Amino acid sequence: MPLKSSDSSSPPAHEALKIPARAWFEDLRDRICAAFEAIDGGGRFERSAWQRPTEDGSAGGGGVMSVMKGRVFEKVGVNVSTVSGEFSRDFRNQIPGAEEDPRFWASGISLVAHMRSPRVPAAHFNTRMLTTTKGWFGGGGDLTPMRLDAPEAIADAADFHAAFKTACDRHDPAYYPEYKAWCDRYFFLPHRNEPRGAGGIFFDRLDTGSPARDFAFVRDVGEAFLQAYPAIVRRRMDEAWTAAEREHQLIRRGRYVEFNLIHDRGTLFGLKTGGNVDAILMSLPPEVKWD
Amino acid sequence: MPLKSSDSSSPPAHEALKIPARAWFEDLRDRICAAFEAIDGGGRFERSAWQRPTEDGSAGGGGVMSVMKGRVFEKVGVNVSTVSGEFSRDFRNQIPGAEEDPRFWASGISLVAHMRSPRVPAAHFNTRMLTTTKGWFGGGGDLTPMRLDAPEAIADAADFHAAFKTACDRHDPAYYPEYKAWCDRYFFLPHRNEPRGAGGIFFDRLDTGSPARDFAFVRDVGEAFLQAYPAIVRRRMDEAWTAAEREHQLIRRGRYVEFNLIHDRGTLFGLKTGGNVDAILMSLPPEVKWD
Repeated sequence: MPLKSSDSSSPPAHEALKIPARAWFEDLRDRICAAFEAIDGGGRFERSAWQRPTEDGSAGGGGVMSVMKGRVFEKVGVNVSTVSGEFSRDFRNQIPGAEEDPRFWASGISLVAHMRSPRVPAAHFNTRMLTTTKGWFGGGGDLTPMRLDAPEAIADAADFHAAFKTACDRHDPAYYPEYKAWCDRYFFLPHRNEPRGAGGIFFDRLDTGSPARDFAFVRDVGEAFLQAYPAIVRRRMDEAWTAAEREHQLIRRGRYVEFNLIHDRGTLFGLKTGGNVDAILMSLPPEVKWD
Repeated sequence: MPLKSSDSSSPPAHEALKIPARAWFEDLRDRICAAFEAIDGGGRFERSAWQRPTEDGSAGGGGVMSVMKGRVFEKVGVNVSTVSGEFSRDFRNQIPGAEEDPRFWASGISLVAHMRSPRVPAAHFNTRMLTTTKGWFGGGGDLTPMRLDAPEAIADAADFHAAFKTACDRHDPAYYPEYKAWCDRYFFLPHRNEPRGAGGIFFDRLDTGSPARDFAFVRDVGEAFLQAYPAIVRRRMDEAWTAAEREHQLIRRGRYVEFNLIHDRGTLFGLKTGGNVDAILMSLPPEVKWD
């Protein structure tokens, strides 16, 4: 069964944003990949398309995974996907607006960059739009320097946060403090009693009543990431680093794996609902050590 | 509050086995470590003791973690622990005999070996005794060759299974088929639709009505592991291997991490109930890659 607009339960204002939102996520992907390739000066993104399987064989959408294994970017994955279908009975009561009608539509971009140099922080960024009988946006970005207390890491984190704060403040002065705190709560490893990194912002179920306004905010969040992270990479990528720093980086990456596989709701949700394994686990670092 | 026998809710026959069971697990640990050190011819186990913290500061037992990073054994950890306390309200209804009285006692040995050579299978083994108002044993062992379809791996797996089958058959001819199937079900990665390795045996909540008989079975399972695995290591450790095989091993280890952090009940139970993080995550491989 092909996707038709009559298959949708989305509110009209969100319905009208489906095509522009998807186009935005894909355009942002293109601009981020171009910026990263320009920095890397060696690697190129390779794209692979995937389809979302559905139990009844109907079209459920899919995505495109772009992966670069480069000189500066040891492994960076950028996934864009636009999927639709019905939530299983288990999930209906956990998702806003899905209780009475299980149909959903979702489109988004998700990115994780693991860097060759231990002096360059890793980064994660994603934004998405979802609709059921309700519609909302979510997303965020966070920075993971290898040594949180190094002066360089503190400076990098300050710039990263400043870019998001500027984007947030343009829309609502309450956003940045709220979304920064949400990020700190979310990217935390309780079993280690430590944060995953230097934070950033995190937001979900954003629906102010004006989807156009929320979409404008989400675009500004994307622009903020594109402004902040490449600049951080450029200023750190040529610093010399030692074998001991590299070893420490590989150990720190273990914490990233622990977070993503034990705690990250998106990862577990994807794996337990038959999502594309390669696209979901694209976030895992290319090389990791445990003591 | 020190542990006194009057603090226990254990059935008498299991109560009588607490000291012998603990002594057996620790003795088996000593014999396994000695066998592994003799094989390695380079590394030595280093031991570190840990205490189980309790909310009210009372004694909750603890354990000793033994880790060797050697020439043949890239990283092998053997943990013995004897702990007691009360199950939290969340767990009482999931644990046999804990509904009416939340007190428990548990002692066991747990081992994971990650080998330097991709020609030598990784192995996991554990056995344990638990008491609440009921008492039971559990445990098992499984082998993880890097290429399940290689003739050498098939031969190794056959010997590993044969040793456990002999141990099982000595006690009950129904044990081996049941526990082999249980192992295959348990050590399976649904998101990859693949087994973790070549299997072995897995059993839990074993209580035939004769704790002495069950303890004898558990001892035979330990002897079977000690007989089978070192022999497999010895016959594979001197085989030459290529860089491509090593690379493949590091990728396969990623699957081991995925299983332990996403699916392994023991790991998640430990991490979510404030267990000793180092002892629990001792099972993670020393070096791992994701494509």
